[in-house]
Amino acid sequence: MTVGIIMGSKSDWPTMQHAADMLDKFGIEYETKVVSAHRTPQLLADYASTAAERGIKVIIAGAGGAAHLPGMAAAFTSLPVLGVPVKSKTLNGVDSLLSICQMPKGVAVGTLAIGDAGAANAGLLAAQILGCQQPEIFDKVEAFRKEQTETILANPNPAE
Amino acid sequence: MTVGIIMGSKSDWPTMQHAADMLDKFGIEYETKVVSAHRTPQLLADYASTAAERGIKVIIAGAGGAAHLPGMAAAFTSLPVLGVPVKSKTLNGVDSLLSICQMPKGVAVGTLAIGDAGAANAGLLAAQILGCQQPEIFDKVEAFRKEQTETILANPNPAE
Amino acid sequence: MTVGIIMGSKSDWPTMQHAADMLDKFGIEYETKVVSAHRTPQLLADYASTAAERGIKVIIAGAGGAAHLPGMAAAFTSLPVLGVPVKSKTLNGVDSLLSICQMPKGVAVGTLAIGDAGAANAGLLAAQILGCQQPEIFDKVEAFRKEQTETILANPNPAE
Amino acid sequence: MTVGIIMGSKSDWPTMQHAADMLDKFGIEYETKVVSAHRTPQLLADYASTAAERGIKVIIAGAGGAAHLPGMAAAFTSLPVLGVPVKSKTLNGVDSLLSICQMPKGVAVGTLAIGDAGAANAGLLAAQILGCQQPEIFDKVEAFRKEQTETILANPNPAE
Amino acid sequence: MTVGIIMGSKSDWPTMQHAADMLDKFGIEYETKVVSAHRTPQLLADYASTAAERGIKVIIAGAGGAAHLPGMAAAFTSLPVLGVPVKSKTLNGVDSLLSICQMPKGVAVGTLAIGDAGAANAGLLAAQILGCQQPEIFDKVEAFRKEQTETILANPNPAE
Amino acid sequence: MTVGIIMGSKSDWPTMQHAADMLDKFGIEYETKVVSAHRTPQLLADYASTAAERGIKVIIAGAGGAAHLPGMAAAFTSLPVLGVPVKSKTLNGVDSLLSICQMPKGVAVGTLAIGDAGAANAGLLAAQILGCQQPEIFDKVEAFRKEQTETILANPNPAE
Amino acid sequence: MTVGIIMGSKSDWPTMQHAADMLDKFGIEYETKVVSAHRTPQLLADYASTAAERGIKVIIAGAGGAAHLPGMAAAFTSLPVLGVPVKSKTLNGVDSLLSICQMPKGVAVGTLAIGDAGAANAGLLAAQILGCQQPEIFDKVEAFRKEQTETILANPNPAE
Amino acid sequence: MTVGIIMGSKSDWPTMQHAADMLDKFGIEYETKVVSAHRTPQLLADYASTAAERGIKVIIAGAGGAAHLPGMAAAFTSLPVLGVPVKSKTLNGVDSLLSICQMPKGVAVGTLAIGDAGAANAGLLAAQILGCQQPEIFDKVEAFRKEQTETILANPNPAE
Repeated sequence: MTVGIIMGSKSDWPTMQHAADMLDKFGIEYETKVVSAHRTPQLLADYASTAAERGIKVIIAGAGGAAHLPGMAAAFTSLPVLGVPVKSKTLNGVDSLLSICQMPKGVAVGTLAIGDAGAANAGLLAAQILGCQQPEIFDKVEAFRKEQTETILANPNPAE
Repeated sequence: MTVGIIMGSKSDWPTMQHAADMLDKFGIEYETKVVSAHRTPQLLADYASTAAERGIKVIIAGAGGAAHLPGMAAAFTSLPVLGVPVKSKTLNGVDSLLSICQMPKGVAVGTLAIGDAGAANAGLLAAQILGCQQPEIFDKVEAFRKEQTETILANPNPAE
Repeated sequence: MTVGIIMGSKSDWPTMQHAADMLDKFGIEYETKVVSAHRTPQLLADYASTAAERGIKVIIAGAGGAAHLPGMAAAFTSLPVLGVPVKSKTLNGVDSLLSICQMPKGVAVGTLAIGDAGAANAGLLAAQILGCQQPEIFDKVEAFRKEQTETILANPNPAE
Repeated sequence: MTVGIIMGSKSDWPTMQHAADMLDKFGIEYETKVVSAHRTPQLLADYASTAAERGIKVIIAGAGGAAHLPGMAAAFTSLPVLGVPVKSKTLNGVDSLLSICQMPKGVAVGTLAIGDAGAANAGLLAAQILGCQQPEIFDKVEAFRKEQTETILANPNPAE
Repeated sequence: MTVGIIMGSKSDWPTMQHAADMLDKFGIEYETKVVSAHRTPQLLADYASTAAERGIKVIIAGAGGAAHLPGMAAAFTSLPVLGVPVKSKTLNGVDSLLSICQMPKGVAVGTLAIGDAGAANAGLLAAQILGCQQPEIFDKVEAFRKEQTETILANPNPAE
Repeated sequence: MTVGIIMGSKSDWPTMQHAADMLDKFGIEYETKVVSAHRTPQLLADYASTAAERGIKVIIAGAGGAAHLPGMAAAFTSLPVLGVPVKSKTLNGVDSLLSICQMPKGVAVGTLAIGDAGAANAGLLAAQILGCQQPEIFDKVEAFRKEQTETILANPNPAE
Repeated sequence: MTVGIIMGSKSDWPTMQHAADMLDKFGIEYETKVVSAHRTPQLLADYASTAAERGIKVIIAGAGGAAHLPGMAAAFTSLPVLGVPVKSKTLNGVDSLLSICQMPKGVAVGTLAIGDAGAANAGLLAAQILGCQQPEIFDKVEAFRKEQTETILANPNPAE
Repeated sequence: MTVGIIMGSKSDWPTMQHAADMLDKFGIEYETKVVSAHRTPQLLADYASTAAERGIKVIIAGAGGAAHLPGMAAAFTSLPVLGVPVKSKTLNGVDSLLSICQMPKGVAVGTLAIGDAGAANAGLLAAQILGCQQPEIFDKVEAFRKEQTETILANPNPAE
């Protein structure tokens, strides 16, 4: 497995699925797992601290509310960790965003947008991270981006 | 030691000191320690998971920004954990408050106000937690509260 | 009764019921009552100031909007008070959260998350407060937490 | 005394003084007193519930943070209560504003702006409240407003 | 007419109707009118500047978004003006609340809560404003408040 | 005069001066005046409703807090009105921004950024508004923009 | 074409259509096009930098989330650019509003309200921008505004 | 050069310098350049679109306010882009954070915390991105993290 996609709860899957879908586009292998920072802290510590030796290159972590999963995964590994703020019931993900993004100096999380778009972009950014040193993935990202551009150029009329 | 006061960084001490000062008023013993959820995650796991057997009854945890310390301490212990949002440089502690308070169902943190007042009240609430089952501490809290009331009653003139 | 669950209005019950449900898990006795800080202030004063002598150990108070109930209950008792910000119609509970959490030095409220999760955690934290000095409740909390962990470990696949 | 100006702490006086100054302009008598909703709840209950019989017509209450004073004063009297959100240390008075303003149906507080301007306007609105049924006060308000207008008209150049 | 209820748009009526309903409880006469600060500014100027001479004692103004109606009504009269922030489509009334409440020194608006509760309380506060100098209205407010209290006292069980 | 720069108070001048300075760069004539929506509402009505016939083409209005000036100016004229949210003492201009920007359908204000940058850009946008139909002003804006670009290109080293 | 209406995605059309509808009222010609700052950046550069020579006088750009379209259009042209914050899924358009409005000194965007009202007002402000130098358009705006006023004056009863 | 550090203005350097300092710790080569999305949009397009062929592996972009630089850099390259929200004068970087983070699906920016900590972490995350496929850099990150942990473990007393 190249990418590990973890999330705090099964209820985060409809959001985090977009990360998996994006990785599928680039043929990048990934695993998905429910790992709760608060309810399975030891699993989180084990998962993150052994990820590198298991061959994982990038961890994508999604969580909502007091979203500690991405930051705590980052605390236990030297791999790059991308955080996806899942839209929360009461505060629309503002709490998730700040909890994930406002990390202290010395332990970093690359934070994406709240919700589905952020999850998809976490998959894309993981591909870009791999691609910056693997030309064949870089080329796939280029192709994806080019196609994305052409789709819009081919349909410029907003009212159609 | 009855209460453990932990904080994510030495820079949190001027805030968290107010918790210690309050416990001093009630003669409650405490220990203070820098424990960073992000930079010393294993220390945090060890500290929180062994706190009960070391005789700690209440943990007070202060942190700022993506303040994961209180929630992660709560993840590793069944003792009550009180969280103090330390005022952050950029967002005045709103990030700290939401990161500490918005915990998911199943792992709880009792959150106090942002900053010095919150730290002092964490000490007070710890005393109340002990006092609800220890009459002599309850009486000390009552006395503190009574004195507090009398101080205001004795000085009702705002302009003096 | 060991725990008093009060709320500002009957409309808070669907939220606060989660606190009661959690206490049921631990076999902790509780009473529930509508007590409005604004519409029945004398009842609130009476309820809170006599709670300790009636044997109550912890008060859980839920309210929305200008949620004064937890803070005013705390003003009338030396027992620990836990506050649950009920999700408000217009501001999603941000008003409730700030009104409950931002207490001044000298009168403390332990604030939980906005809404159902916060109410459930108020029940859990009340159990932890009792448990830190009653081993049999502590053990029940440990068991609850262990079971919670195992449920996730047994179902790690988010897409199932 | 016609107006009662109360505040949660002596530290609110530099703000609330502006209410007193405004009432001075109209020759309206007032009393000032520190009354803390949280630290002297019984004093608050007594103050507010006896205000009408003592001849008070309007209560102005200023408080910061979890600013319960105006709402609780309103809970204990049928007199009109005006609330002044005092600028708080950590959240600039947003917490004070929401705590004062977001009252539930059935107990009202007329909320003014955060800080000095709000305090001054609480004095002005108190005068307008008295003036709507006392022509001589109404005339004084009219004169104040007219003079205020003329001061600006006489100095239209912003750079002077 | 004793109270003038104005609002920026017909779409504000479902909210502002609660002000009218509350005044009905006290037998206080009122008029209701759509007056838009932005689309009928001259009508607003005329309405507010002649309100006193037409016998109006209190103006209640409701508006949403860049809610200028209450503040501009206050600019044209020396009568007390109460502002109701109507819940806005995009920002839930936070914009309305700040636009109404944050008035500069010298022109005051007494602001109520966002939405229906705020509108009802505007009616109640208008009654209290009249009542502080008219004993028969004061007594009606007292009776209303007493009944409100008794309704809660008679139904203390939240689950019923 | 081609542009009218108005502001709610002399204290807004240090901000609004940036609008004047920008217009100076393009040789566009302007007048500056203190016009308070709340304290001189009739002056505002007169100023805005006669602006077009006096030859004004664009109105720039700056205000802070419950910043009604831009929206009310727009209510009294069919000229384009640009609004500058002045940084407020308590809420940093968030109140000003929302009060100016969230106008209802049918009366528009083009809102710029909070503070000095917004004021400067109001001057620039006024020039662009004139320039879109006056080639010589358009050319001056082009030249200004080109020079601005070249200044950065000539100094690419951030550490110098 | 006199006005160019661009938007970041087809999903913005239901909002931006209100801008087109408003321009239709004044008989002002416009073109509409999907131009994504992020997915078709070169198209955006080309569109904006050639707009003036193609006869466009005003650009209206609508976008949501990290809404870069209006600001980047402004970066490539000296024509006036009006920005419409489209209501976003997670943050209700607060992100869109701040991204569009908070432009740095030297490149300006005139920002309208979030959502449909803002889009309609962008059309109106474009007409006012043209009208300030074209009397026949100015007269049409005056007529529109007058009719708008009269519609309200003719229907003053909110409950009808 | 392996990493490109760009920023919207020289005034961002005191913040962005922390990214450079962090890269220095790992011996990773970088270039620094002022590139303004709004004032030098063509330079930005050129810089980002040629970065990969010039050997750049990761772009770090810092900007404040309507911070379009990171998102527009991402629009012109398939390399991973990390965004640093620079603390803004009026809104403390909330505007910068939302503008950078809330990117639409298909173009990603990995966002760090507001201000100095975020800039330092951008450097760290860039090293982790390189390190996930370059063992010698991975080892350096591990060593840095280990030393960071040990520094705290060696100084656990907050009051010293």
